[in-house]
Amino acid sequence: MPDPILYIGNKNYSSWSFRPWIGMRATGIAFEERLVPFDMENGNPDFQTFSPTGKVPVLVDGDLTIWESLAILDHAARLYPQSHLWPENTAFRSQAMAMSSEMVSSFMALRSACPMNMRRERKPIEVTPAIAKDVNRIQSLWSSSLEKSGGPFLFGTFSIADAMFAPVVNRLDVYAFETMPEVRAYMDTMKALPAWQEWETAGRAEPWVVAEDEA
Amino acid sequence: MPDPILYIGNKNYSSWSFRPWIGMRATGIAFEERLVPFDMENGNPDFQTFSPTGKVPVLVDGDLTIWESLAILDHAARLYPQSHLWPENTAFRSQAMAMSSEMVSSFMALRSACPMNMRRERKPIEVTPAIAKDVNRIQSLWSSSLEKSGGPFLFGTFSIADAMFAPVVNRLDVYAFETMPEVRAYMDTMKALPAWQEWETAGRAEPWVVAEDEA
Ligand SMILES: N[C@@H](CCC(=O)N[C@@H](CS)C(=O)NCC(=O)O)C(=O)O
Ligand SMILES: N[C@@H](CCC(=O)N[C@@H](CS)C(=O)NCC(=O)O)C(=O)O
Repeated sequence: MPDPILYIGNKNYSSWSFRPWIGMRATGIAFEERLVPFDMENGNPDFQTFSPTGKVPVLVDGDLTIWESLAILDHAARLYPQSHLWPENTAFRSQAMAMSSEMVSSFMALRSACPMNMRRERKPIEVTPAIAKDVNRIQSLWSSSLEKSGGPFLFGTFSIADAMFAPVVNRLDVYAFETMPEVRAYMDTMKALPAWQEWETAGRAEPWVVAEDEA
Repeated sequence: MPDPILYIGNKNYSSWSFRPWIGMRATGIAFEERLVPFDMENGNPDFQTFSPTGKVPVLVDGDLTIWESLAILDHAARLYPQSHLWPENTAFRSQAMAMSSEMVSSFMALRSACPMNMRRERKPIEVTPAIAKDVNRIQSLWSSSLEKSGGPFLFGTFSIADAMFAPVVNRLDVYAFETMPEVRAYMDTMKALPAWQEWETAGRAEPWVVAEDEA
């Protein structure tokens, strides 16, 4: 079987692409990467040719096309069990799934005010009550998971929950939010992953600037 | 072990509550239901006492508290494997997960214009392009799954994908959208489930009216 193909957007900005990419890379799953940069002026017509939603990421694994970052990660966890992408422990696994689904459904204030941006210099923005609420909820989720598991990742070893929150680690960092010490230590652990470093270096080197993502 | 406890909101309106409820009921998983009605004037203070997000649904299974409808269903699928809540077939399972995650992340136009409402008399609303786009995408997802699986449910037998889209079956029905014949047949199959009938009957009998959900 050839390696699966992961379609992604710009590494500097595409937060949803980052999730399955870091999840698969950090756990040693081989894949072929196809980066299709955003074309802000023409509404990403290229995405329509390979993506059923017109969005990235998309994984093409043999005959199968999987969209949605969480579904790609869950597919990878089942087809590559040696990745241990889901925590083994039942309680941790159910909580990792709840946190991952909450990431998909929530935190709209933070997501819209603070786009992921690997290249941004650390600089605060004006923190509205809605943004503060999102950031507090995220820190309390991370902090209680880290306390239960003992760290250094949310559920001990690296899991889908870490992949799903990776772009939020970038946001809390580059928009200079005040963080609890255990949250800061977790963010440093994530940023030290070779997979993170590889993505960040590539993102910084990209030529494309998306004006609306420069908050 | 005592049965898990599922906290839900009003059956007439709470679309997220309906998902794990119908998923568990339709597949014979025993649970204790605790209905806590919305208090629109006071911001649902009661939800905060049992829910880490202040939202319903929440499942309390022994020591474990699981929030997010998709995570509750995934937890139920793993802990009650005889429910066959996820399709056995790998390709179907990955696609069921992609569709379920897309339900969580998407269809905002339809979701905000057309609240789930078990009691509503069938009556159209003004269909904006954004709503039409959501409804077309949903019909094409259902139609292609039904074609691949042969029906009568999205992936053959009842699965988490059906549970996740159950409130959308109600919306397409009561807001009188034009539907493809195979989509209509699928909606009729869903509405004929004893679990659906039980929920709908209880929803219709509720005394509470939430003005903002009466579109
Ligand atoms: N819920 C989706 C979100 C995907 C998404 O919104 N991707 C963005 C890039 S980060 C995109 O493709 N935007 C292009 C568009 O909407 O046209 C997932 O989890 O994968
Ligand atoms: N993403 C959540 C959504 C939960 C949700 O929004 N629930 C609504 C009722 S359908 C709620 O509790 N709203 C009360 C509130 O937001 O205060 C899930 O999948 O369970």
